[in-house]
Amino acid sequence: MRSPRLTIALAALAAVGAGEAFAAGSAVASQTFLWLALIIFLARLSSFVERFGVPGVLGELLMGVVLGNLTLAGIGMFEPIAQDTTIAVFAELGVVILLFQIGLETTVAELAKVGFRAAAVALIGVVVPFLLGTFVVGPLLLPGLGLNAYLFLGATLCATSVGITGRVFRDAKRLDSREARIVLGAAVIDDVLGLVILAVVTGFVQSGTVSARDVGIIVLEAFGFLVGAVVIGRAAAPYLVRILKGVSDSVATKLTLLLSVGLGLAWLAHAIGLAPIIGAFAAGVLLEPIFLKDFEAPEIVRELEPLVAKLPQLDADRAGKALERYRHHHHEHILEPLGHFLVPVFFVFTGMQVKLEALADPAVIGVALALTVAAVAGKVVSGIAAGPVDKWVVGWGMVPRGEVGLIFAAIGKQLGVVNDALFSVIVAMVILTTLATPPILAWLLARQRRESPLA
Amino acid sequence: MRSPRLTIALAALAAVGAGEAFAAGSAVASQTFLWLALIIFLARLSSFVERFGVPGVLGELLMGVVLGNLTLAGIGMFEPIAQDTTIAVFAELGVVILLFQIGLETTVAELAKVGFRAAAVALIGVVVPFLLGTFVVGPLLLPGLGLNAYLFLGATLCATSVGITGRVFRDAKRLDSREARIVLGAAVIDDVLGLVILAVVTGFVQSGTVSARDVGIIVLEAFGFLVGAVVIGRAAAPYLVRILKGVSDSVATKLTLLLSVGLGLAWLAHAIGLAPIIGAFAAGVLLEPIFLKDFEAPEIVRELEPLVAKLPQLDADRAGKALERYRHHHHEHILEPLGHFLVPVFFVFTGMQVKLEALADPAVIGVALALTVAAVAGKVVSGIAAGPVDKWVVGWGMVPRGEVGLIFAAIGKQLGVVNDALFSVIVAMVILTTLATPPILAWLLARQRRESPLA
Repeated sequence: MRSPRLTIALAALAAVGAGEAFAAGSAVASQTFLWLALIIFLARLSSFVERFGVPGVLGELLMGVVLGNLTLAGIGMFEPIAQDTTIAVFAELGVVILLFQIGLETTVAELAKVGFRAAAVALIGVVVPFLLGTFVVGPLLLPGLGLNAYLFLGATLCATSVGITGRVFRDAKRLDSREARIVLGAAVIDDVLGLVILAVVTGFVQSGTVSARDVGIIVLEAFGFLVGAVVIGRAAAPYLVRILKGVSDSVATKLTLLLSVGLGLAWLAHAIGLAPIIGAFAAGVLLEPIFLKDFEAPEIVRELEPLVAKLPQLDADRAGKALERYRHHHHEHILEPLGHFLVPVFFVFTGMQVKLEALADPAVIGVALALTVAAVAGKVVSGIAAGPVDKWVVGWGMVPRGEVGLIFAAIGKQLGVVNDALFSVIVAMVILTTLATPPILAWLLARQRRESPLA
Repeated sequence: MRSPRLTIALAALAAVGAGEAFAAGSAVASQTFLWLALIIFLARLSSFVERFGVPGVLGELLMGVVLGNLTLAGIGMFEPIAQDTTIAVFAELGVVILLFQIGLETTVAELAKVGFRAAAVALIGVVVPFLLGTFVVGPLLLPGLGLNAYLFLGATLCATSVGITGRVFRDAKRLDSREARIVLGAAVIDDVLGLVILAVVTGFVQSGTVSARDVGIIVLEAFGFLVGAVVIGRAAAPYLVRILKGVSDSVATKLTLLLSVGLGLAWLAHAIGLAPIIGAFAAGVLLEPIFLKDFEAPEIVRELEPLVAKLPQLDADRAGKALERYRHHHHEHILEPLGHFLVPVFFVFTGMQVKLEALADPAVIGVALALTVAAVAGKVVSGIAAGPVDKWVVGWGMVPRGEVGLIFAAIGKQLGVVNDALFSVIVAMVILTTLATPPILAWLLARQRRESPLA
């Protein structure tokens, strides 16, 4: 009769028609609320590392590593979070919002300018690690596993998690640099190439053969999606804006336009086999501010604009510019709270996937370190193709494997190709590339800023 | 080898250690993105009803009813949404955010002023419908079901879903009216009383007996939570603000403070058997703006404040007030996008729980209508205790049963006390009270506004 019993009764409800989803969702929901509250609170606390020049994203990743491994200290309370699929959805939504925001801060013109360089960087960043993994590092470090295992190792080394790099560039307010454009463009192409390699390797492992026609279809589908999304999206956007504005011209409408396009393309990307974040990035790129300028100005702008016009010329100009900038960036402001809420969930959750036990065996550490060196070298070398920019920044920008690497390795394990030992060293490599990149990239960006302060 | 296969391979991943949650979450996540994009887009389209004076919330509910019943027209595509537990979590998060926002716009002082009236309204609004359902309407309309069934019917009639009423008050910008305060206060007390009745009835049905001690414990726990949350929360808030501000003084920190307290108390409320929205409301009430004033002002305020000071006295005052208001309400602004995103998910999802088949049988319709009349009368009569205000507004404010009524009925069905026929008429009653209230309440508020335009 006491309330815990009632809670159990509520939680036990299942398959009773209307109300079922609510009752079932209610117990999950309230557990989710606790996890979300804890994650965002602790993530915010972890941002104190920024005082020491450490990127905030590393603080969040490390907070995740700590939370995910507290069981080693006998604290099992946070253990369920890492396996919670609802939190996984919020985490994925977080990185989708992040890449959508980054896409909104990127224009097609800027990407086109670096298109050739980005393609070259992506190609090298996929071919070199793949060959290195399959034919050199695999056979050398883990002899006797067979070609299939080495192929999967190679495929995993191709992955790039642009979320981590994008966040570092964004926090450093360097998304408008040529280096950032090249890395973003290369990461998108990289994802397509990675998809092709994963599909080819999976097909080869399953059937021992791969047809050029199948590969061609995958490539066409993926590039067709990207080009189609941006071209069709840009053509359709003004009409979509007009329809929604016709219904109501408010902040809610603007946000709905942004989110329905962003989430819709994230779904579409996944449906054709790409990562959802690639769809979200494409959505951000296609929704340039020009489509949003027709919406009503935010209230504070409407209120102050006539007043500041009365200021002396110089001050009126300054105030007018501030209001104009606020208005022009209003779509970014209204996405900002969603980002502040959900993006840390992704990074903490990613950190929680790291199992320190995997690093407990000295033999594993040795192999993992060697593999990491190869993983870093294979990507950093791609910076060569970046042209007259800081090649180190571009190369290191491609290094983190993040959740993409983990998913590749998990597929290999599922197929029975990747055994426990190989899986452990892959996970260790993913951890090390993911944790090492933010501080190194931040240091490279700071050095660049010091050397050419006007850039 | 084509991408659908790859998608399946990704979706089929399970139980493979690190990467598992990501891979499993990834397929769910991208499906969730599609549903969310569809829901918020269609919800926004439905807001065209506002042009005809119909409250937006009814548009969203009806859009949900349409989506949830398209199977009747042979379109099964949206069918899975209504059973999707991940969407249920987002919906619940939406109503939690709504009640948190409403709480933030409410102060303890305002609630205390109407405390006595609210308690009286809540008491009548629980006792009358309970007696009416158990001893009059039940035996009269559905003879031969037995006392246990009538007790559950009575308990279901006690429920109040404050989300719907709160949204109507908020959209009409009347949250600061005395009527709104009374309804909000009464709804909170109502939830506690409803919890007690549900626990008592459940205990009686299961064991045939109920001890006064058990009832006392539930009442103490529930009221202890509410009073404790607000008292302890208000004492602790300044320290929490100081800790978080010490880490970093930014919009992200302010939002983290808001959300971690709001979600944390929503969880705590559920943990002791109350509805999560009651915890969210309490969190909003305890986090009065005074705790948030110490945070750094938003960028636009910092930029413009020194400039507008140079305006002629009168204009400087107006501009200064606009900036001050913007700053003072900044915490509401940063929650606004989360609300615009998630609140419609709740109302569309609630609408989707409505199965029109339940209304197909003329006999069911007759009984359902009679039950609805009793359900409305039992709550409207509680307005009598509201004192010198518009009693109709208060009474109708208590009418909608919403998801709370559905959960009560579902528990009864689970216990085997509520049979299919009773369940159908209860669901129909919940539908009718939920859909009828927004337009009637909006009409009452408009009438009130016409009659005393200065109120």
